[in-house]
Amino acid sequence: MVAAPSVSSSITARLQVEARPTAVSELTTAIEREGGIVTALDVTASGHERITVDVTCATRGEAHASDIVEALRMLHGVVVERVSDRTFLLHLGGKLSVESKVPLRNRDDLSMAYTPGVARVCEAIAAHPEDARRLTIKRNTVAVVTDGTAVLGLGNLGPLAALPVMEGKAVLFKRFADIDAFPIALDTTDIDQIVETVCAIAPVFAGINLEDISAPRCFEIERRLRERLDIPVFHDDQHGTAIVVVAALTNALRVVEKKLPDVRIVLSGAGAAGTAVLKLLLAAGARDVVVADIDGVVHSARPGLTPELAWTAAHTNPRGVEGTLRAALAGADVFVGVSAPDVIDGDDVATMAADSIVFALANPRPEIEPEVAALHATVVGTGRSDFANQINNVLAFPGLFRGLLDAQSHRITESMLLAAAQALASVVRDEELNPTYIVPSVFHPDVTAVVAAAVEQAARAAQ
Amino acid sequence: MVAAPSVSSSITARLQVEARPTAVSELTTAIEREGGIVTALDVTASGHERITVDVTCATRGEAHASDIVEALRMLHGVVVERVSDRTFLLHLGGKLSVESKVPLRNRDDLSMAYTPGVARVCEAIAAHPEDARRLTIKRNTVAVVTDGTAVLGLGNLGPLAALPVMEGKAVLFKRFADIDAFPIALDTTDIDQIVETVCAIAPVFAGINLEDISAPRCFEIERRLRERLDIPVFHDDQHGTAIVVVAALTNALRVVEKKLPDVRIVLSGAGAAGTAVLKLLLAAGARDVVVADIDGVVHSARPGLTPELAWTAAHTNPRGVEGTLRAALAGADVFVGVSAPDVIDGDDVATMAADSIVFALANPRPEIEPEVAALHATVVGTGRSDFANQINNVLAFPGLFRGLLDAQSHRITESMLLAAAQALASVVRDEELNPTYIVPSVFHPDVTAVVAAAVEQAARAAQ
Repeated sequence: MVAAPSVSSSITARLQVEARPTAVSELTTAIEREGGIVTALDVTASGHERITVDVTCATRGEAHASDIVEALRMLHGVVVERVSDRTFLLHLGGKLSVESKVPLRNRDDLSMAYTPGVARVCEAIAAHPEDARRLTIKRNTVAVVTDGTAVLGLGNLGPLAALPVMEGKAVLFKRFADIDAFPIALDTTDIDQIVETVCAIAPVFAGINLEDISAPRCFEIERRLRERLDIPVFHDDQHGTAIVVVAALTNALRVVEKKLPDVRIVLSGAGAAGTAVLKLLLAAGARDVVVADIDGVVHSARPGLTPELAWTAAHTNPRGVEGTLRAALAGADVFVGVSAPDVIDGDDVATMAADSIVFALANPRPEIEPEVAALHATVVGTGRSDFANQINNVLAFPGLFRGLLDAQSHRITESMLLAAAQALASVVRDEELNPTYIVPSVFHPDVTAVVAAAVEQAARAAQ
Repeated sequence: MVAAPSVSSSITARLQVEARPTAVSELTTAIEREGGIVTALDVTASGHERITVDVTCATRGEAHASDIVEALRMLHGVVVERVSDRTFLLHLGGKLSVESKVPLRNRDDLSMAYTPGVARVCEAIAAHPEDARRLTIKRNTVAVVTDGTAVLGLGNLGPLAALPVMEGKAVLFKRFADIDAFPIALDTTDIDQIVETVCAIAPVFAGINLEDISAPRCFEIERRLRERLDIPVFHDDQHGTAIVVVAALTNALRVVEKKLPDVRIVLSGAGAAGTAVLKLLLAAGARDVVVADIDGVVHSARPGLTPELAWTAAHTNPRGVEGTLRAALAGADVFVGVSAPDVIDGDDVATMAADSIVFALANPRPEIEPEVAALHATVVGTGRSDFANQINNVLAFPGLFRGLLDAQSHRITESMLLAAAQALASVVRDEELNPTYIVPSVFHPDVTAVVAAAVEQAARAAQ
């Protein structure tokens, strides 16, 4: 399948064009003939003989963008002055700023925000450390921590190259939950040193969002940080995914009128996301889950199980299934993939039970193309924005942290994750629910508030 | 000396007052009789019988504020509804926010600022790490790092209680140099761990500002960080003070028409600030500096010298002075105090050479009261905002870092510190210079730009 042109790969070309009646239509026609999509066109200057045109178009990527520019260059009377990449333009100088919330107009302001006035505030916090949540930024501040070892689907790019993602995450925190998040990209991949570093910098933060840290290191890092710190520690790649999957599955089961404890679930992937999805599914009441990884179905008799897989084997697979992922799918009600592209096909989905549900979340290429899955399954979800039912972590982590921060929670528990999942599912009302709408849009105005309220309540109940 | 009322200790009292003609004047009279200074008065509600008045006044501190409130309470027909402390009000919720510089209005925006578009930016940085200064916040971001061991003059308050100062510092960075600074308050006082932590979090930052770390630990921490990191590391308590002292002394010597290589300087204090001031004075050309600490004048024969003091003894005191600070002052042209309150008196200053210069920078109580010093010295400076010639680090660090960041400097050298000092001195023009104006106001519009330009030039010359 050829990917559709995406705004994320759009370019703006500045062109000098001969001033004749068909000049603009020739441009747009040329772009469309090459498969680009024109999204904006401005005449920025005009003379008797020539006009200057800025034309913006979505492309399928860098090679495609070059083809389009070349096609423009070949047009009679067109000179390509420069081409800019909108995504790179947007990143110039980074995506965040740190701003002052207090005025500094004169000495009086200075004497309150800084010395000597600030000394009284420091002494107040020294006497009552819990006042730091009232008198400093701690109340609303979250660290987005990575070591750059598992950046998106790109692998170990290191801390500097991971920064644009962490900044983007902080942008999402702000946009969707009004949380002040700051990116911490660590120049180490050593577990001990990561744990020590995060503990050392923890005072200013009210929560830690771990991001894009490779498995299985992420499990130990999260576990040890949770033991050491008195603020919630949350690995979004694990639990953010788990929350949205459980929410989406809750609503998909509403669509097909099945119950979670009754359905057979096949889970492809036993990494960071897979393990977290499994645990939250079990906590939510799932009773028949079969997990498969690259070596096939996980079962207790399988040789060479790691401690994590041994745990999985002990807590799943009640019918003692062995063999391949594909074989395990026969008769299953639900497939959840957090693994790799193209591990199943349409014939496999055809062997599933009636009214089957397929979530193919590998990104950017899913376990099965959603159009193919939809030939046999009733509900299909992916991680991609260009299909219905996008299972996107942005639906979970902003509201989750908003609730944790509002409750001034010192930790995060499975009951809070479950509360988030159930709240997220509840945003889709009965009259809205259908096979193509099992999760709300990330821009749905209620998502953050509904999730936050549920998590805050769960956190207060746990205090 | 009784301190004057300060806005940094001002309160706002909400009062219910009987509606009669003299009601408001009785309030202000009562406050002034107690020694408070009314800075604002608003009638916020009015009825036939009573009015609601918010009155704000500067006080000398918490006890004084209580006295004033009590005096208001004693007035006939006045009910004190509530009293709030303006400095604490200003600190509610902290003084910083992290803001997004990019819009997130729809899916297209999301696809550029986050996945999938961001992946191309990550890959570009992975291929060319230096592009992180173009495509991330690194270019303009500084860490304000403390362990909370030497917070203002208050000592070891710990990281949480130090946060208001670090936030204030970040506010100053933004206000005066448009730098994005983020507070890092470390939950450790171990030198090794501080060094490891700062190295681990360094990728996102283009500079490290160390703050309020106790001596002598600050020396080793700074030295080791400078060895390890490829970004400038600057301990403001040391070098910020040194820059402003050298700038102020440069101009004070212009006033009294003496030359730095010719004058005798007595420096009280051999801690973090004192050591840095000494080194920068020597780099600037001073040749006769006598340093004294709590044990008197530092000289090579003094028993029990630490390595730092042995260095000082070897590089100062060319006339082999021994004995007390007070004795050393006889005949000196310049006194610089970065030590403790009341270590010299007027009689000591009277023994100094003609047209003497006294900088008494201990804070909040100086080495000698400036009014007393001024009886004998021609130029007097302090660290306080309520006297002329405030030697304030805010004059140095914003412009210094602005210059370092603009030059994308990987380090900081003495030549850059000296360039900053000379540039700062140059802001005071000949026609402005007088004994009460040797440094510009922190709100002088040229300070940051002039210092930044000089530092940038020095940094580029060192590349």
